[in-house]
Amino acid sequence: MAGHVTVYEVGPRDGLQNEERVVPTGDKLALIGALADAGLKRIEATSFVSPRWIPALADSAELVERLPARPRVTYVALVPNGKGLERLLAARSRAASPAALDVAVFLSASETHNKKNVNKSVDETFRAFDEVVGPALAAGLRVRGYVSTVWGCPYEGAVDPRKAASIAERLLGLGCYQVSLGDTIGVGTPNQTREILGLLLHRARPGSIAMHMHDTRGTALANVLVGLEAGVTTFDASVGGLGGCPYAPGASGNLATEDLVYMLRGMGYETGVDLDKLVTAGELAQGLVGRRLPGRTLQAELAGRQRARSDGAGER
Amino acid sequence: MAGHVTVYEVGPRDGLQNEERVVPTGDKLALIGALADAGLKRIEATSFVSPRWIPALADSAELVERLPARPRVTYVALVPNGKGLERLLAARSRAASPAALDVAVFLSASETHNKKNVNKSVDETFRAFDEVVGPALAAGLRVRGYVSTVWGCPYEGAVDPRKAASIAERLLGLGCYQVSLGDTIGVGTPNQTREILGLLLHRARPGSIAMHMHDTRGTALANVLVGLEAGVTTFDASVGGLGGCPYAPGASGNLATEDLVYMLRGMGYETGVDLDKLVTAGELAQGLVGRRLPGRTLQAELAGRQRARSDGAGER
Repeated sequence: MAGHVTVYEVGPRDGLQNEERVVPTGDKLALIGALADAGLKRIEATSFVSPRWIPALADSAELVERLPARPRVTYVALVPNGKGLERLLAARSRAASPAALDVAVFLSASETHNKKNVNKSVDETFRAFDEVVGPALAAGLRVRGYVSTVWGCPYEGAVDPRKAASIAERLLGLGCYQVSLGDTIGVGTPNQTREILGLLLHRARPGSIAMHMHDTRGTALANVLVGLEAGVTTFDASVGGLGGCPYAPGASGNLATEDLVYMLRGMGYETGVDLDKLVTAGELAQGLVGRRLPGRTLQAELAGRQRARSDGAGER
Repeated sequence: MAGHVTVYEVGPRDGLQNEERVVPTGDKLALIGALADAGLKRIEATSFVSPRWIPALADSAELVERLPARPRVTYVALVPNGKGLERLLAARSRAASPAALDVAVFLSASETHNKKNVNKSVDETFRAFDEVVGPALAAGLRVRGYVSTVWGCPYEGAVDPRKAASIAERLLGLGCYQVSLGDTIGVGTPNQTREILGLLLHRARPGSIAMHMHDTRGTALANVLVGLEAGVTTFDASVGGLGGCPYAPGASGNLATEDLVYMLRGMGYETGVDLDKLVTAGELAQGLVGRRLPGRTLQAELAGRQRARSDGAGER
């Protein structure tokens, strides 16, 4: 075995947030359950941003209340500010048997994207984190940091990797256990990834850095390969590639979890994820959003199942 | 610059051959023209297999007759046997101004796939090549060899890379200027690719080996990255990812040319291909087959164009 890699599932939050259709809470819980059944141990479940910003996740409090506690499964909720943390903690206190939960904070490596996304400068965003990170840690929750637009910004174009590196360092300094670097618009290519990771891993241990690649231009797994070779052991992905590209409607966004797991398995990495059950979760996700999801392995496996059923029917 | 890489376009043959809709000859020529306009210098145009096998390419003689001679552009036609070569040479002799043309021969690294594909054993296929390779070379045409199912076979599963290596050597020994290794069902992952190329490049110079990856499970560009690092400088791809996966209807097949060009450009490789014009060719291909093509970059760029048009309309 080539070692263990953590597959960090973001579909129920990052995926559904960018889907047109609003999925009912019970259906979200069914999807989360199917993902946990497939062996995923980190599942980003929802976000406590204002419901006015993201109606698709307006049920975050109810969802957290109903998250099923499962052995070795940790859920994650995004929290933008102190008010969000209060709502999260209140929801959690109402849960009959509270599930393991991490908090995630997020910002952008590019000022323009950060301003458009959270209506604050990067420095102002860090001030808002003071209301979240310390209190979350005090409440016994781990905190993860997200840095988006590390590979490029839809408004500014190229982003200086030193900016991302300094933000990542600052997040780790605040007490985040891990920082996930996001290629928000899916523009990354391998040499650039090598350069970014070289800068980041020079300052932080590999376990504290995760990669969140988008497959908008088909390069996600090539970038993951560079990450693996640099020592990164956590990769974010979304079941079926759930969630479009927010800057190019109709294009692909998140790397599909099945594609990531397929490549890791082929390379001998241990992920604990059962690809067959993951495909079943992907089929469920596809039904919930009512569209064909872009994940390649998902579609190949579903086509294979369809063919097996037809062959079976033909033989009868 | 990181060096020159040849992007070998297979859409008009390998792509259209696997599409449901039969595209008229004139439309094929328009697509081929758009691909050449984008800067592609190697374009696989058609196949001289029996029209009974592949009705989509039944117009191969007419197409070759009408291929426009263009500076530095070489077309390629697949030829399975002596009869196919005769038809090709006859068509070429009828052309008003014959275009530069290569011949390609093909077989599989797995006996079962070869038998199902060309109804011959591997040894019998090589005997049929005697009617093609020598006479083609004598007629002044270069010959390329294809080995499919190198990464895996839909019938046999794993394929011994030594089988592919010995077939490739045999093809080069016959006088093929290059052998293209195909991941016909898109199952390849990076360590496997490293192993296969290690074996192949030990016996042949890098320029004599090309890679033909399928993106059925999203791993095509990760495998291309391994190839680049091993010294491979020719990669096959299909405009828009034209052509489905023959063994999983509905799933993706060929690596999309736009995705390949996007990654190579980002890594500093010189390809001579204009991505913007290639997207225009992809849009044309999409119209010809009447379905949304799976190429990621194509869809992202088309969505971007659509958005720019809407923004422009809004500003008026």
